[in-house]
Amino acid sequence: MHLEPADHLVQAGAFSIEERDAVYRAIMTRRDVRNEFLPKPVAEDVLRRILSAAHHAPSVGFMQPWNFITVRDEQRRREVWQAFSRANAEAVSLFPEDRQALYRSLKLEGILKAPLGICVTSDPTRGGPVVLGRTHNPRMDSYSTVCAIQNLWLAARAEGLGVGWVSIFNAEDLRQILSIPPDVEIIGWLCVGYVDALYERPELELKGWRQRLSLDDLIFEETWQGRD
Amino acid sequence: MHLEPADHLVQAGAFSIEERDAVYRAIMTRRDVRNEFLPKPVAEDVLRRILSAAHHAPSVGFMQPWNFITVRDEQRRREVWQAFSRANAEAVSLFPEDRQALYRSLKLEGILKAPLGICVTSDPTRGGPVVLGRTHNPRMDSYSTVCAIQNLWLAARAEGLGVGWVSIFNAEDLRQILSIPPDVEIIGWLCVGYVDALYERPELELKGWRQRLSLDDLIFEETWQGRD
Repeated sequence: MHLEPADHLVQAGAFSIEERDAVYRAIMTRRDVRNEFLPKPVAEDVLRRILSAAHHAPSVGFMQPWNFITVRDEQRRREVWQAFSRANAEAVSLFPEDRQALYRSLKLEGILKAPLGICVTSDPTRGGPVVLGRTHNPRMDSYSTVCAIQNLWLAARAEGLGVGWVSIFNAEDLRQILSIPPDVEIIGWLCVGYVDALYERPELELKGWRQRLSLDDLIFEETWQGRD
Repeated sequence: MHLEPADHLVQAGAFSIEERDAVYRAIMTRRDVRNEFLPKPVAEDVLRRILSAAHHAPSVGFMQPWNFITVRDEQRRREVWQAFSRANAEAVSLFPEDRQALYRSLKLEGILKAPLGICVTSDPTRGGPVVLGRTHNPRMDSYSTVCAIQNLWLAARAEGLGVGWVSIFNAEDLRQILSIPPDVEIIGWLCVGYVDALYERPELELKGWRQRLSLDDLIFEETWQGRD
């Protein structure tokens, strides 16, 4: 029997209140973790589930441009940490002088403390030269890979894992350490490990770096309504 | 009493099996919806919850660069649909001839069928000229906004709403229709509405555009391990 696409439509209404609340609990209690990682290794079945969550992200033209390089080796993570440290030393000098002391006081990564690193990459060649949906926005493939990261992050929260996204690198350093081909884009380095405590609000808010904006100020009706 | 940041650490272990399964259910059954929208208006409290989910996405340096322009007006959505149609006519000619008939047969948007459009934008100026975590990757602000979209998408699934991300536009057309300032980046147009059925697998897979890749082929250990 040949099934038409319409035969694959299945019932899909709202979740139960309990299920819905679980989804919002993951979204609202997810944190960018830097220091709360426990040393216990991440179980293989749990890692597989969070990577499968990532792999079920939306992707432009269904190109699935992502790869996941899992890094457990301590010497390799030390090289990644050194790459972060070099970039972070460059970063601090870019801030106004009155912010530099606070910037220096912030812990911005858990590369060595988390037992697992995942480098997430995006391969723009995967769907061939012309990709459905990317024709008018060349960044759609990297955006798909970012959706994969957010899926992984939320699944990790439900599994009791913390995730921290480190972006303070010169990309060429990571490329060399991990032998990533020149045409593959590096989207992020994720620090992953079990946690038993998380900040109740974003760490940068609690530590006085920036405050939460009002959602009301961010919603416009019908057209852009001017800057606040 | 002055609270130190460490006083804001709260217990955060794994979810119950039921809660975890709800998170995975949202991730695995979320679809990019084009045609299954029902005409019923989106309730204000539900819209607020999915926008709040978006607003609780991770953002580089906690800059929260996103805005959400909600568009219900039918004439305005018609202008957006016309902008899509112009871009899509350009797009089809870019594909190899043997793919053009299939491309033309695909419905790629629900701009008029969905009762609500949300244009999601990213304002690179919001955190000032130097943003913590963006110093070495200028795209981190748009990536934060993509995380907000994925949060919204998953929350919408739990609420019984479908979401479709339309990327086939010349950005300047949307900018003009919605009066978006020149320095604000347009990340995506989301079609949003209630659904009671969704495809059990991605529509582009069921309609023969591209197949699901094997997750095993996308995971590398320690370093990049060559193209498949």
